[in-house]
Amino acid sequence: MIKVGIVGGTGYTGVELLRLLAMHPKASVQVVTSRAEKGLQVDAVYPNLRGFNDLCFVEPIIENLTTCDVVFFATPNATAMYMAKNLLDAGIKVIDLSADFRLKDVAEWEKWYGASHVCSELLEQAVYGLPETNREAIKGASLLANPGCYPTATQLGFLPLIKGDVIDTSILIADAKSGVSGAGRFASVVGLMSESGESFKAYGVPGHRHFPEISQALNAVSKRPVSLTFTPHLAPMIRGIHATLYAPLVDKGVDLQTLFEVFYAEEPFVDVLPAGAHPDTGDVRGTNRCQIAVHRPQGGNVVTVLSVIDNLVKGASGQAVHNMNIMFGLDETDGLKQVGLYP
Amino acid sequence: MIKVGIVGGTGYTGVELLRLLAMHPKASVQVVTSRAEKGLQVDAVYPNLRGFNDLCFVEPIIENLTTCDVVFFATPNATAMYMAKNLLDAGIKVIDLSADFRLKDVAEWEKWYGASHVCSELLEQAVYGLPETNREAIKGASLLANPGCYPTATQLGFLPLIKGDVIDTSILIADAKSGVSGAGRFASVVGLMSESGESFKAYGVPGHRHFPEISQALNAVSKRPVSLTFTPHLAPMIRGIHATLYAPLVDKGVDLQTLFEVFYAEEPFVDVLPAGAHPDTGDVRGTNRCQIAVHRPQGGNVVTVLSVIDNLVKGASGQAVHNMNIMFGLDETDGLKQVGLYP
Amino acid sequence: MIKVGIVGGTGYTGVELLRLLAMHPKASVQVVTSRAEKGLQVDAVYPNLRGFNDLCFVEPIIENLTTCDVVFFATPNATAMYMAKNLLDAGIKVIDLSADFRLKDVAEWEKWYGASHVCSELLEQAVYGLPETNREAIKGASLLANPGCYPTATQLGFLPLIKGDVIDTSILIADAKSGVSGAGRFASVVGLMSESGESFKAYGVPGHRHFPEISQALNAVSKRPVSLTFTPHLAPMIRGIHATLYAPLVDKGVDLQTLFEVFYAEEPFVDVLPAGAHPDTGDVRGTNRCQIAVHRPQGGNVVTVLSVIDNLVKGASGQAVHNMNIMFGLDETDGLKQVGLYP
Amino acid sequence: MIKVGIVGGTGYTGVELLRLLAMHPKASVQVVTSRAEKGLQVDAVYPNLRGFNDLCFVEPIIENLTTCDVVFFATPNATAMYMAKNLLDAGIKVIDLSADFRLKDVAEWEKWYGASHVCSELLEQAVYGLPETNREAIKGASLLANPGCYPTATQLGFLPLIKGDVIDTSILIADAKSGVSGAGRFASVVGLMSESGESFKAYGVPGHRHFPEISQALNAVSKRPVSLTFTPHLAPMIRGIHATLYAPLVDKGVDLQTLFEVFYAEEPFVDVLPAGAHPDTGDVRGTNRCQIAVHRPQGGNVVTVLSVIDNLVKGASGQAVHNMNIMFGLDETDGLKQVGLYP
Repeated sequence: MIKVGIVGGTGYTGVELLRLLAMHPKASVQVVTSRAEKGLQVDAVYPNLRGFNDLCFVEPIIENLTTCDVVFFATPNATAMYMAKNLLDAGIKVIDLSADFRLKDVAEWEKWYGASHVCSELLEQAVYGLPETNREAIKGASLLANPGCYPTATQLGFLPLIKGDVIDTSILIADAKSGVSGAGRFASVVGLMSESGESFKAYGVPGHRHFPEISQALNAVSKRPVSLTFTPHLAPMIRGIHATLYAPLVDKGVDLQTLFEVFYAEEPFVDVLPAGAHPDTGDVRGTNRCQIAVHRPQGGNVVTVLSVIDNLVKGASGQAVHNMNIMFGLDETDGLKQVGLYP
Repeated sequence: MIKVGIVGGTGYTGVELLRLLAMHPKASVQVVTSRAEKGLQVDAVYPNLRGFNDLCFVEPIIENLTTCDVVFFATPNATAMYMAKNLLDAGIKVIDLSADFRLKDVAEWEKWYGASHVCSELLEQAVYGLPETNREAIKGASLLANPGCYPTATQLGFLPLIKGDVIDTSILIADAKSGVSGAGRFASVVGLMSESGESFKAYGVPGHRHFPEISQALNAVSKRPVSLTFTPHLAPMIRGIHATLYAPLVDKGVDLQTLFEVFYAEEPFVDVLPAGAHPDTGDVRGTNRCQIAVHRPQGGNVVTVLSVIDNLVKGASGQAVHNMNIMFGLDETDGLKQVGLYP
Repeated sequence: MIKVGIVGGTGYTGVELLRLLAMHPKASVQVVTSRAEKGLQVDAVYPNLRGFNDLCFVEPIIENLTTCDVVFFATPNATAMYMAKNLLDAGIKVIDLSADFRLKDVAEWEKWYGASHVCSELLEQAVYGLPETNREAIKGASLLANPGCYPTATQLGFLPLIKGDVIDTSILIADAKSGVSGAGRFASVVGLMSESGESFKAYGVPGHRHFPEISQALNAVSKRPVSLTFTPHLAPMIRGIHATLYAPLVDKGVDLQTLFEVFYAEEPFVDVLPAGAHPDTGDVRGTNRCQIAVHRPQGGNVVTVLSVIDNLVKGASGQAVHNMNIMFGLDETDGLKQVGLYP
Repeated sequence: MIKVGIVGGTGYTGVELLRLLAMHPKASVQVVTSRAEKGLQVDAVYPNLRGFNDLCFVEPIIENLTTCDVVFFATPNATAMYMAKNLLDAGIKVIDLSADFRLKDVAEWEKWYGASHVCSELLEQAVYGLPETNREAIKGASLLANPGCYPTATQLGFLPLIKGDVIDTSILIADAKSGVSGAGRFASVVGLMSESGESFKAYGVPGHRHFPEISQALNAVSKRPVSLTFTPHLAPMIRGIHATLYAPLVDKGVDLQTLFEVFYAEEPFVDVLPAGAHPDTGDVRGTNRCQIAVHRPQGGNVVTVLSVIDNLVKGASGQAVHNMNIMFGLDETDGLKQVGLYP
């Protein structure tokens, strides 16, 4: 059994890791840290875990993690960068669900995250963990930067078009909608149900932290410069991201449906729906699956891609487990075989 | 008092007309029809109206409507076209909340609505009731085609840009999200809360009936041909439309905020928010107001407009009352002074 | 025009007062205080009020309120008690939406609210503002204690039974469900939509602060001692309270429907539904109305009462305006004529 | 592998059986019937099942089911009674998720279900499938009547009190709240999100079909006659039942917490929470678990029990799988090890 530590076990991505790993046949959570809940039983804080987890939260210090084979950081940004080096030096693999190691350009990171990066020397070796484009590098990774939720849904929708070189990359639109759990488990007014229920709004239109991550990733695989407009929205639901993507079609003769189906034929967690379909976030609830449909409305010049994920699973903790499976040579679907919780 | 008749009083736009007109100082509902609920008290079907309405539903026939000054059709499509001519001939004004008289091209109408238009001779004289672009014509209208919900939110967002001639109209994107009440009060599986709650999805991507309506309207005011991609989505809430609009900016020197503020300076129901704002559907709930913000993310080449309305008010019944007010020379805000029901 | 001040204008009951008073024909808000938002435009914080309110928030000090005829406290508990005396001494009427003056027994208050009462000398003169039982006293009140939301829905359901002396008051059950806005506009984890959406739970079962308020009020009108079990629940919606009330029926011959209809015949804001009805919180959304139905399931020995209100209106700000209307000799329905926002 | 057939695979309990059985180590679904969807791929109707199920819906006739070891009826009431006998005669076990075989008294069944029972001769042999009270009988059952959702949550809460003989059974109150999926996947107006979202109401107060089922079951285990008042409510969420139960406490000396813990000590799917807890339906979402807390508010004379389940799992399909496991001698938790999907 792979011995797992989780730093920051009291947020939504932390408890989701605990949910997924409770069913994992080859990994076992040994340590869960939480500064705020130190000493408490994990299942006293999360009654859904009663009977599945008898650990207590411990202090998030290196000494408590040295017996682990891998440590997941389910922490706010600018936390993992303080501990990653020591863990790596101790031979422990690190999977960071936060944004600390996602951007290669430290100046860009510091601009968007408003902090000094204390561990920029590791940015080079950090592997960006989108298995669908980066599987080989992930296999050898010690420090894995798990992608953001919006970047996952957006990249998976654009990748076949960009790698297939069939669109004009100078004007890409990503209109993305997220459930409220993406904001995490922090006391706030804007996250109150009275504020976010029965309401819909965009946010971060002038600039959102996931914008540089998506831009970096798409530019890395594109022959031509990618110019992206990204608009996140808050939808009145708990889980789910729906990315609606637009691009001018250059190659008018391409069979888009086949392009997507071939591109993802071997991927266990990307499911290209039949032509004409409209994916629903509700169908991937609780799963590590991305469901995608590609349209060319009225045979026109714009391709529209619809890409849905569960932000806490494929957009966070599930993808992190997938990456762990790859890093440790396990079956990629271990612990990730859930059927979508519909309705 | 203006004597009002409502045909189709048991749908959501019908009951919303009843709610708004109950408070109208110069109009009084005299007749409400419903084939299915004939004979029942209106407030037995709609307990929110108890004490405000003592009418009974009657059969939807011309004979029951002849005492009215104006008749609203809050009916499914392809209903008003059977009765409008007789009412007009009797000197009664008609305000149609359905789509029967919105498109000028009968072939286009028949293609999108899948029926023969039995009253196409009236299409020419029908006035499209978006007050912000068509006020003078509305003043003299006898037959008014009340705009659709998506078309209202979308046009109000694009109009300043198109009339100001500052964008490239060859690639407009309208990514629109609607609450479920837009689908009406009809028994269905897809409208069940178990299906549409906690879920988000696009629909009608290959083609939606509001597409030709928006295209017709935008082309009518644009110097250049407008090519639009329109994607409607279903959001897990009851009321509200959020249209997120994208266009390539051609006039890089324009002050977008001023453009919008000047354009709508005199409009009682369009509220341009301060620069940097993100309108929220929850702030216009129950009101006839459109709140708009305009952005140019990171000073780039794409302008992003955020436009929100309550689909049942500014997107339907409120706009219909506004049109009635204009048609009868009343104060435009009569009956429409509600404050948004937040939270 | 009555000159109104609102202390604590940034919570939900504060903004709801602003919404209702914006339409009031005889009252005008002159002052709105907020320590946190001091100096900001009210409509910058609450965009739903744009165009209806051009005030700025000011410091909550007596000096800012001396021009008012009446001051509403829409504050957390244990705030009004610090300012009420000075305002009263200045000849200003006080309507307190918090709990500071609801309980007559200071020890009881201090036990449930966990604070010392700094103004207990006013408890005696404070008038409990449930108009349906206390209208005459309200007319002469200078210091009005506006009832809590649960107590309003619960009392209105039990009153006809208790005053009619038809039930065994030794075992009353009040099972009450509230929307999340009842918890106020405070940053919290439990109020997050991720926590309270798609979930249902009871809270405060061992003891809730509204328990002594309801007990005091019911005992005050009952011939026999009232023993109540009160269970509040959090329902995944924003507005609305549904109280389901149970009592053993002693007078088996009573016509319950008539008892309720007669009891509330003259009340403008209590609407007894026809026999067999099931009131829906959605029908009173945004209104000051209580809709009630009374049942005797299967002709048995238990009477079941269903009582619904909008917790922010009849359960708070609307009732406060109602009380102001009574205190100032206005028409009781001034500013309170809204139709329920259905759907 | 146990060969499973499902009759009525297009409702919510049908698709939930498919979800659970997809992960079952010892059972395999061979046949899924649907008259309406005959010929369609199961995963074309339910995209959440893509990759987990390659069956097509077939006609619901005996001939299609003869290869099965067990047939689940996930059908509307008054359907299973037409097919059960033939299946049993063919040596196939039957698990009926509908109400056809739950009541022992045929006249009572016919009164509540408004139909003639065509197979009343099987009522005697049908075993009521609440494992916590009936495990031994279930082991030998051929025809299993799976309990209703409200009856499951209600019985599990009352059983320790009644079997422990510590309450006065002459006045039991069950105030129960259900998510909307309990109404099934049928086109309707009342089930629309526009109707049931953001609203709360009771229904069936004069009499609900689950009332006789609960009464029969509680009377069967009680030393004294049970008189129950049962009020179902519709809560604006998809999954979950919260039963709040009240009873006068007779044995004032009993340790209620211990009573419950001991009673359910060996049960794999009933989880008695620590003293003082408030179970949340969200913690059992997607699981076969009932979480229970018992309270004696303010040390008074009434015991309050809070009992939560997922209505589609422990309240329907999960309990049906549990019963199958018992009937076939499998590990009781096979296929039922899910962790609650929080948040």
